[in-house]
Amino acid sequence: MSLYSSLFYSPDMQSLLSEETTVAHMLRFEAALATAQANNGLIPTPSAERIAACCTVELLDWERLKKDIALSGNAAIPLVKQLTEVVRKRDEEAAGFVHLGATSQDVVDTATVLTIKSVLDWLDDKLSALANRLIALTQAHRQTVMIGRTLLQQAKPITFGLKTALWLDGLGRSQQRLAACRQRVLVLQLAGAVGSRNASIPDAVHQETANLLGLESSVSWHTQRDNIAELAAVMGILSGSLAKIANDVMLLMQTEIAEVLEGKAAGKGSSSTMPHKRNPVTTTAILANANRVPNLVATMLSAMPQEHERSAGRWHSEWDVLTDIMQLTAGSVERSLELLDNLEVDSQRMRQNLELTNGLIYAETISLALAPKLGKATAHELVEKACAVAIAEQKHLKDVLREQAIDVADLDKLFKPENSLGQALEIIDFILHRFVHS
Amino acid sequence: MSLYSSLFYSPDMQSLLSEETTVAHMLRFEAALATAQANNGLIPTPSAERIAACCTVELLDWERLKKDIALSGNAAIPLVKQLTEVVRKRDEEAAGFVHLGATSQDVVDTATVLTIKSVLDWLDDKLSALANRLIALTQAHRQTVMIGRTLLQQAKPITFGLKTALWLDGLGRSQQRLAACRQRVLVLQLAGAVGSRNASIPDAVHQETANLLGLESSVSWHTQRDNIAELAAVMGILSGSLAKIANDVMLLMQTEIAEVLEGKAAGKGSSSTMPHKRNPVTTTAILANANRVPNLVATMLSAMPQEHERSAGRWHSEWDVLTDIMQLTAGSVERSLELLDNLEVDSQRMRQNLELTNGLIYAETISLALAPKLGKATAHELVEKACAVAIAEQKHLKDVLREQAIDVADLDKLFKPENSLGQALEIIDFILHRFVHS
Amino acid sequence: MSLYSSLFYSPDMQSLLSEETTVAHMLRFEAALATAQANNGLIPTPSAERIAACCTVELLDWERLKKDIALSGNAAIPLVKQLTEVVRKRDEEAAGFVHLGATSQDVVDTATVLTIKSVLDWLDDKLSALANRLIALTQAHRQTVMIGRTLLQQAKPITFGLKTALWLDGLGRSQQRLAACRQRVLVLQLAGAVGSRNASIPDAVHQETANLLGLESSVSWHTQRDNIAELAAVMGILSGSLAKIANDVMLLMQTEIAEVLEGKAAGKGSSSTMPHKRNPVTTTAILANANRVPNLVATMLSAMPQEHERSAGRWHSEWDVLTDIMQLTAGSVERSLELLDNLEVDSQRMRQNLELTNGLIYAETISLALAPKLGKATAHELVEKACAVAIAEQKHLKDVLREQAIDVADLDKLFKPENSLGQALEIIDFILHRFVHS
Amino acid sequence: MSLYSSLFYSPDMQSLLSEETTVAHMLRFEAALATAQANNGLIPTPSAERIAACCTVELLDWERLKKDIALSGNAAIPLVKQLTEVVRKRDEEAAGFVHLGATSQDVVDTATVLTIKSVLDWLDDKLSALANRLIALTQAHRQTVMIGRTLLQQAKPITFGLKTALWLDGLGRSQQRLAACRQRVLVLQLAGAVGSRNASIPDAVHQETANLLGLESSVSWHTQRDNIAELAAVMGILSGSLAKIANDVMLLMQTEIAEVLEGKAAGKGSSSTMPHKRNPVTTTAILANANRVPNLVATMLSAMPQEHERSAGRWHSEWDVLTDIMQLTAGSVERSLELLDNLEVDSQRMRQNLELTNGLIYAETISLALAPKLGKATAHELVEKACAVAIAEQKHLKDVLREQAIDVADLDKLFKPENSLGQALEIIDFILHRFVHS
Repeated sequence: MSLYSSLFYSPDMQSLLSEETTVAHMLRFEAALATAQANNGLIPTPSAERIAACCTVELLDWERLKKDIALSGNAAIPLVKQLTEVVRKRDEEAAGFVHLGATSQDVVDTATVLTIKSVLDWLDDKLSALANRLIALTQAHRQTVMIGRTLLQQAKPITFGLKTALWLDGLGRSQQRLAACRQRVLVLQLAGAVGSRNASIPDAVHQETANLLGLESSVSWHTQRDNIAELAAVMGILSGSLAKIANDVMLLMQTEIAEVLEGKAAGKGSSSTMPHKRNPVTTTAILANANRVPNLVATMLSAMPQEHERSAGRWHSEWDVLTDIMQLTAGSVERSLELLDNLEVDSQRMRQNLELTNGLIYAETISLALAPKLGKATAHELVEKACAVAIAEQKHLKDVLREQAIDVADLDKLFKPENSLGQALEIIDFILHRFVHS
Repeated sequence: MSLYSSLFYSPDMQSLLSEETTVAHMLRFEAALATAQANNGLIPTPSAERIAACCTVELLDWERLKKDIALSGNAAIPLVKQLTEVVRKRDEEAAGFVHLGATSQDVVDTATVLTIKSVLDWLDDKLSALANRLIALTQAHRQTVMIGRTLLQQAKPITFGLKTALWLDGLGRSQQRLAACRQRVLVLQLAGAVGSRNASIPDAVHQETANLLGLESSVSWHTQRDNIAELAAVMGILSGSLAKIANDVMLLMQTEIAEVLEGKAAGKGSSSTMPHKRNPVTTTAILANANRVPNLVATMLSAMPQEHERSAGRWHSEWDVLTDIMQLTAGSVERSLELLDNLEVDSQRMRQNLELTNGLIYAETISLALAPKLGKATAHELVEKACAVAIAEQKHLKDVLREQAIDVADLDKLFKPENSLGQALEIIDFILHRFVHS
Repeated sequence: MSLYSSLFYSPDMQSLLSEETTVAHMLRFEAALATAQANNGLIPTPSAERIAACCTVELLDWERLKKDIALSGNAAIPLVKQLTEVVRKRDEEAAGFVHLGATSQDVVDTATVLTIKSVLDWLDDKLSALANRLIALTQAHRQTVMIGRTLLQQAKPITFGLKTALWLDGLGRSQQRLAACRQRVLVLQLAGAVGSRNASIPDAVHQETANLLGLESSVSWHTQRDNIAELAAVMGILSGSLAKIANDVMLLMQTEIAEVLEGKAAGKGSSSTMPHKRNPVTTTAILANANRVPNLVATMLSAMPQEHERSAGRWHSEWDVLTDIMQLTAGSVERSLELLDNLEVDSQRMRQNLELTNGLIYAETISLALAPKLGKATAHELVEKACAVAIAEQKHLKDVLREQAIDVADLDKLFKPENSLGQALEIIDFILHRFVHS
Repeated sequence: MSLYSSLFYSPDMQSLLSEETTVAHMLRFEAALATAQANNGLIPTPSAERIAACCTVELLDWERLKKDIALSGNAAIPLVKQLTEVVRKRDEEAAGFVHLGATSQDVVDTATVLTIKSVLDWLDDKLSALANRLIALTQAHRQTVMIGRTLLQQAKPITFGLKTALWLDGLGRSQQRLAACRQRVLVLQLAGAVGSRNASIPDAVHQETANLLGLESSVSWHTQRDNIAELAAVMGILSGSLAKIANDVMLLMQTEIAEVLEGKAAGKGSSSTMPHKRNPVTTTAILANANRVPNLVATMLSAMPQEHERSAGRWHSEWDVLTDIMQLTAGSVERSLELLDNLEVDSQRMRQNLELTNGLIYAETISLALAPKLGKATAHELVEKACAVAIAEQKHLKDVLREQAIDVADLDKLFKPENSLGQALEIIDFILHRFVHS
C-alpha cells in the first residue's frame, strides 16, 4: 500500500486485488476441485462438502501464512497446509482429499485468472462508460473549431469533436483486444505436478472444475505464459491510449493555450505556494501511470522463457507485476472517467487561438486553392514566401496576399476555420455511427 | 548492419526491411494515390501515369536523400521533393499532382504498414513450417519418456512429446494473435495534415488507394498508435514463446543432462580453445534476441501518448525500433526452424537420467498410491520420510519402502516411468488433433 | 503490501519505506526548515520550536491525508495544510511560519533523500556482511576443484573459490558505486516554487537545513533527476550482480549437477505434491526480483525529461517505482545473505562431475601441452580428433591418446584437475588481498 | 544502417562503431597479446612481429567471416581462424602462436572496451563543448526574465539563464559519472577459457597487453558485467539530461509560447503540406532517442545474471544493444550541440508572456509580502480570493488588490519580474563559478 494509492490507483481495485481476495480465489479453486472430484466419484461427497465449507479466509492464520510463504516460495503450499489442518480438525477423512492431484501452480495460476476475470468485468463496464462519455463529448463538439497541431506547432483547423472521435476510435480497439484476450486468458490451470495431469484430475474433473469457476478448460500453461503476457500487453496498450488523451489535455491546459481544463473540485489542483494556480492533477496521475506500465509489460514478456515444466524465478516475477499492471491500468481508466466527466472546454479560447498566427494556419488551404492554377510546387513556394513576409512584418497573411496581388478566389472564405475542416465532420459521423449502432 | 546480422537476424529480413524497400513502399504509396486520384477525376490520367512511372527507387539521389532527412525530420519530405523534381523534368504539369493532399506521415506510416504486411506474410509461412516440425517431433516422441523438471529439479516423468506438444500449443496462439492483429494493423494511413483529410483525398480516393495497396481503409491513426503497439507486443509474445523452447533446449543440452542437442553442422559451435566442446549456438542466438525484444516492445508502448495531431519524437522513436523488433523476431523464428529441423534427441540418455535419483521421482506416484488407504497427508509424510532415508543412505526408494515394510501393491510397476505419465498421451493427442485437423 | 512481501522483500525495508516513515521524513524537513529560519533570524524562535514540536505523525488525520492526496497530486500540500492546522490550534502566530518559502517538491524530494540515506546505510552494513561471507567461502574453497562451464557446457576445471572470489569482485564494485552515488544523491531539495529560492530561504537557511538533516546543500534539482536515476541504476546493477550469484547457485543445484544446495530450513522448499523435492526458494526469489528491477530502472530513466521547472507526471512516476527498486534490491541483498550463510557445498560431487566427460575437459590442457612441439593449430586439430574418437567410442580421452600413441609427457598429471587451474589460486589471493586489507 | 542514421545518430559514431573498427580492435588485441608474450619470452619475437604485421583488416575475407559468425556464435572464432591462416601462409611457426592462451570472449570484450574508450574520448570533447555553449548561454541570459512553469502552468518569473545554468549543472554530473565509469570499464579482458588464466597469459603478459592497449589490467569479468552495465546506465542518464533540455525547448517552441526556437537552416523543419511551419527537427530527434535508450539500458541490466563462466545468450544480447546505446547517446550529444549552437532566444516574447495572466504569477510574491503582517495562511487565502476575482472579472490582479484596498507596500514593484527572481542570479553565479574555475 503506497501513500499515493488514492492518486494513482482505483479504490475498486484495492478490493479486487487484495491479498484476501487472492487467497479467497485460491480457496474457491480448492472447493471447486473437491466438488468436481466428488461429482465424478473420485472422492466422497461429504468430504468434498466439508472441504468446500472450510474454504473461507476467516479460518486462516494470516500471520503464519505470510511467514510460511517465504519458506515455500509460493502461497499455495502453506495455504493448502493450513486448509488441510482446518479440515482435519473437523473431518479426518476429508483432510486426505484436499488439493488432490493438483500442484501449487494450479492454485496460484487459477486464482490469478479469477482475479483477471473480475478486473476484465470491471474494465468492460468502465470502458463502456468512458466510450459513452467520449461519444457525448464528440456529439457536443462536432463543430467546435480549434487549431490542429503537429509537432506542437499550430497547423490547420480541426474540430474538438474530431479529436475526441479519434480518442474514441482508439479506445474501441482496446475494447476489441480485451474481448479477444478474454477468450484466451480466462482458462483453468489444473495440470498436476508436471503438466501431465493424473488419475485424480481426469478430463471430466478438469472440465467440471472449469465450469464451476466460470472458466474454460485448458491443457497446461505452467510454462506457456503467452496468454498472461498478452493480457499485460493489452492493458499496456489501453494505458497508452488513455495517456494519449491525458497528454493532449495536459498540453491544452497550458496557461498559454488554455483550451480545455480539468474540471474543478474543491481543493483540487491548488498549489502550496502559488494561490492562483490550477494544477492538472488527474492528467498528471494518468501520465505518471503511463510512464510505468510499458516497463512492467516488458517484465511480463521477459518472464516468458520459463524453464522446463515449472520456472524458478520468472513465474514468480509475474505475480506482483501483473497486479501492478492491473492496478495502474484500472487507475488510469478511473482517472480518465473523472477527467472526461468534468472536462471544461473553452470553445471561445479555441477560436481566439486560431487567430494567433495572423492567418498562417490557412497557408495550406491557400496553397491548395492556388495549386490547380499554378501547380502545386509553385503554389507552395509562393505561399511559403508570403508567409515569410507575414512573419517578418507581423502582418496578417491575408493582407500580404492582397498586397502581393495574388489572385485567389473567395479569399475571406479561405480564412475561416469552418472552411478548412476537410472531412472532419464526415469522419466524426463515421466513427460515431460505429459506436452508437454497435 | 551489424557484424552479427547473420547470427541474430534472418537474411530474408535484410531485404524486406532494407532502406531501399522502405523507400520503394513510400513510392508505391505515391503511385497508388495519384492513380486513385486520376481514377476519381481529381487529376489528369496522364499525370498520374507519369507519376506512377517515376515512382521507382532507381531515379533517386540516395546520398542527398539521406542528408536531407536530417534536415526534414522524416524521409517523406525529401523523398517527395526528389520525386517531384524527377516528375517535373519529364512533365511539368504532372509535377503539380505529386503527393496531392497527403502529409508526410501518411507516406511514412503506410510504407511501414506495407513492410509489416510482407513480414506478416513471411511469418505465416515460417510459423506453419515451425508448427509442422513441432507436430512431427511430437508424433515421433509421443511416448519417449523423460523426466519432467520443476524449479530445475527432477520432478516426475513426462514424455518428450508432451513437452513439444505444449511448445506447439503456445505457438498456435501466436498464430491466432498475428491473424487478429493483421485485421487491425494492415490499414492505410491517408488523412492529410491534421487527420481531417481534404478535398484531394475524398473517401473514394481513400478507398481506392487502400485497394491498390492491398490494405483496408481507416480514419487517421497519426497519433493513435495502438495497432502498431499491438503488432510489436504480439511479436514480443512470439519471441518469448520461441525463447521458452530455446531455453529448454539449452538446459537439456547441458553436459550433465545431454538429452537433446542442437544438430551438428560443419564448424558449428566449436570453441577456439576447447576442442571437445559443442556449444549451443542457435539457442544462444534465440535467447539473446529474447533478452532484447521485451524492452523494444516497452519503447513502442511508451511511444503511444503522441501529442495532438502529430508527435514530436515519440512517433520518430517507433521507426528503427519496430524494424528491430521485426528483425529479431524473424531471426528467432528462422533460428528456431534450424533448431527443430536438426534437433538430436537422445532417448536413451533421457531414460538413464530417469534413474539418477534412485527412484525419488516416483515419490508422488507412491504417495498417491498410498493415499486411498492412509489418507493423503499421512501418505505424503510417510513417503517424505522414506525419501529422506533413501537420500541419507544412498539407497533406491523402492528398497527403502521394502525395508520399511510399507505395503504398496505392484511396487515395481509404480517405479516404471510409463506408469507415471498421467494423461500425457491424451493431452498430446488432443493438441495434435487441433493442429492436424485445423 | 503484497501477499509475497516476506518472500521478495526485506522486513527491515517495510519499516524504512513505510508511508509513516515517508511522512515522518517530510515532517523532519519542516521542523529543520523552521529551526534554520529561526536560527537565522527569519522567524521567531518560539514559533520554530512550536512547529518542530508539532512535526510528529501522531497528530495527523491519516484518512483525510490520503484522501486529499488524490486532490492535490502530491503528499506535501495536504500534509502542510494539516500541520498548519495542528500548529494553529496551539499557536496562531507560529502557524504563519510553517513551510515558509518552501514548495511541495522541496518536501517530497527531501523526504525521499532521507529515505534513501537510511536505505544506503542499511545496504552498507548488509553488503559488508555479504562481502565477509564471500571472503569466508572463498577462503574455505580456495582449492575445492570443480568444473568451469561455458555456454552451460563443461569446459575446464576451476575452483569453487575462484567462482566466489569473482562474485566478491563484482560486489566490491557495487560498494564503490554506492559510495560515489551517495555523494551526489544525499542532497537537500530546498529551492522554492520555481527553483530560484526566495527571501525566506537564503543561503544560510539552506545550508543549516541541510546540516540539520545530515545532507549536503544543492541548487534546485526539481527537474534535474540524474542523481535519483543514478541511484536507481546503481541498485539495478547490484541486483544484477546478486542475480548472477543466484543464477549460478540455481544451475548448480539442478538434480543432475547437485554441487551446491541452498541450506535446509524446516519446511523450506518442500513441494506440495512431490515429497522428495528440495526446491530452490531463496535463489528463486532473487531471480524473480532481478527480472523486475531492470525495467523499473528504465522507468526512472524515462522519467528524466521533466518539463520546465516542475514535471506533470514524470516526477510522480518516480515515487512508487523508486520505492519498489529499493525494496526489491534490499530483498535480494537479504535473500543473498541467507543463501550464502547456509550454502551447502558438496565438494565430493564437484569432483565426481569432473569425471563425467571421460577426460574431455582436459582437451585444452593436452592441446596446450602439445602445442610447443606441434604448433597450436596441429595440436588443436589432433586433440579435436581424439575427442571425437573418445565420444564416439565412449572411451576416456587418456586411453584414446595412448592408443593413438600421441606422445605427451606426464599424461596422468595432465588429467588431474589440480593441474588445470591456471592461475586460479593467485587470482583468488589477489582479490582476497584487496578486500581483507582495504 | 537505417534510413534515419543522419537524423538520430552521429556520423562520427558510424566510423567508431563500424564493423571494420570492431574487427580492427580485435586484431589490435591479438597483436598486443603476441607482442607481450614475445617480450616476456613466451613466444619468439619474429613470430610476434609476423602476427602483429598480419593483424590488419585488409587481409580478411569479410564475406566468409560474417557467414562463419552464424556458425560460431561470436566473431572471435572465425576471425582467429582467418588470422591464423593468413599468418600460416607467411610463417608456419608463427601461426602456432596466434591467440595463444586467450579465449573468444577475451578478444570480443577487449575490442568492446577499446571501442568504448574511443567513444568516451569523443564524448569528453563534445561534452566540454556543450558545457561551454551552456556557459555562454547562461552568461548571455543571466538576467533575461521569463516565466517559470510548473506542471505546465505559469508559476513565477525566473531568468532564462537560471534554466540553462541548471541544465549545465545536470550535465556536469554526467561528466563526473563518465569519468568515474572510465576507471572501472577501461580494463583488459584476458582470462582464458574459464577465467583462471593459464601458462600462456601470466601476470606479466596480462599487464603488458593492457599497457600496449592503453587499458588497465583486471581479473576476469567474463560473467561479471557490472562495468558494462554501468557504462550503459551512465549513458542513459546523460541521454535523459539531454532530453530534459530538448523537452524544454520543444515546449518553449510551441506556437503559443514561442520563446525559443531551433535555429534556422536552409530547408530545415519545413513541412510537406504546410508552408508556414517551422518544425522542431533537432529536439524531435533527441526526444526520439531518449524514448529508446532507457529500455536498452534495461536490456543491459537484464543481461547481467550470466551463467557460470560464460553465458549462453545474455552476453550475446549485449553486443548490438551497447552499440545502439552509444550511437543514440552520441547522436543526442551532437544534436544538442547543434541545438544550442543555433538556439534563438526571443527575450521580448518572454517578457510578453509574463503578462498573459494579468499579474496572477505575482500572487506568491504578494502573498509573501503580506505574510509578515497577516500571517502566511491568511495572506495566502486573501490572495487566493483576489486571484479568483481577477480571473472571473478578467482584471489585472494589481487592480483587484487596489479595489479591495489591500494594503501592500510598493505594489508596482511587486509586479515587476525582476523583483520576483529570488536568488536566481546568485544561483547562476554559483554554478558558473564551478564550471569556469574547475
